[in-house]
Amino acid sequence: MQAGKPVLYSYFRSSCSWRVRIALALKKIDYDTFPVHLIKDGGQQFSEEFQTLNPMSQVPALKIDGVTLTQSLAIIEYLEETRPTPVRLLPQDPKKRASVRMISDLIASGIQPLQNIAVLKKVGQETQLTWAQSVIGSGFRALEQVLQSTAGKYCVGNEISMADLCLVPQVANAERFKVDLSPYPIINRINKTLLTMEAFQVSHPSRQPDTPPELRA
Amino acid sequence: MQAGKPVLYSYFRSSCSWRVRIALALKKIDYDTFPVHLIKDGGQQFSEEFQTLNPMSQVPALKIDGVTLTQSLAIIEYLEETRPTPVRLLPQDPKKRASVRMISDLIASGIQPLQNIAVLKKVGQETQLTWAQSVIGSGFRALEQVLQSTAGKYCVGNEISMADLCLVPQVANAERFKVDLSPYPIINRINKTLLTMEAFQVSHPSRQPDTPPELRA
Repeated sequence: MQAGKPVLYSYFRSSCSWRVRIALALKKIDYDTFPVHLIKDGGQQFSEEFQTLNPMSQVPALKIDGVTLTQSLAIIEYLEETRPTPVRLLPQDPKKRASVRMISDLIASGIQPLQNIAVLKKVGQETQLTWAQSVIGSGFRALEQVLQSTAGKYCVGNEISMADLCLVPQVANAERFKVDLSPYPIINRINKTLLTMEAFQVSHPSRQPDTPPELRA
Repeated sequence: MQAGKPVLYSYFRSSCSWRVRIALALKKIDYDTFPVHLIKDGGQQFSEEFQTLNPMSQVPALKIDGVTLTQSLAIIEYLEETRPTPVRLLPQDPKKRASVRMISDLIASGIQPLQNIAVLKKVGQETQLTWAQSVIGSGFRALEQVLQSTAGKYCVGNEISMADLCLVPQVANAERFKVDLSPYPIINRINKTLLTMEAFQVSHPSRQPDTPPELRA
């Protein structure tokens, strides 16, 4: 790895890692990937080495500018503040910024944590699928209703934002848990629009250095 | 209620509502409280009226400047951007801002959602206490380790920040679930320091308009 080049500790399938990968791609920040396999070896995120980087034992973590950052939204806000070009991920208007953060937090606090690997393990194998479907379902019902008043081409108006970086990976999780997306036409439409963009494609779980061959695009 | 005065939809015991109450107190923003009882009537957050305000059926929601905001951290960021004085809740330096947001997100995405009322109801009465103790315990172990490198008098250095607004209400939850705090000396010390401040006292669950008489300070 090149000195000074940012390093992203990432797992191909982690939706929180994917959020940051999209931000890095949109902002054209070159980086190296350090894969952390969340299943293998009982979870490489629990290794002593990784816990020094992130005591929460979660991906992503980003080494950049001489520091190690964790928590995907905190990382994205940092990238936005230090690298506002070429693409802004937060609008200028405070009320629109609030909408972007509300949607991002709805997903990042209200949905994803309730269906991540650690929680599903606690829930137990028999009920984890219905549990995941239920928490994603309630979250998406609320999100669809929020988007009715905020969405344009994207989650908030016609400019891409941090909210979109949360939406697409969460829809991928929903699909993995076989959630029926037909009750959520706005979520569905925005997700499809975003998936045509290069930044969402290069950052996709099917195209990462640690993607297993059988899941490669 | 006075026209133009902000209205906070709040539940005395909700840790997310408390975060926002502290922000409003620190920034000396006068507001009315509209209590939403999360238990009574099967949960008033599920009423049609409240779901129009917040489709996620969660407190807090804040009516301010002609809009209704939800998600506590999005609300606090909005208050910070529109009312930076008299107390700033985010430092100026981007790396310190990232530390504040990392700690805030660790609590707001990594701990609180896993032990809120809705999840504990799903978990079931018999196991909800051990579940809550376990998720708060893992979160606090990580948080204590993070604070070893960020904390001064408060969570990040010697200036109060959004991270502190997340810490105190989460410690109150921990106490309610009888989590032993002795393994977390830094969390404990910062919490005690903050609880001596007026903004944390007036916003305390024991002093809200909807606090039941038997729980009043």
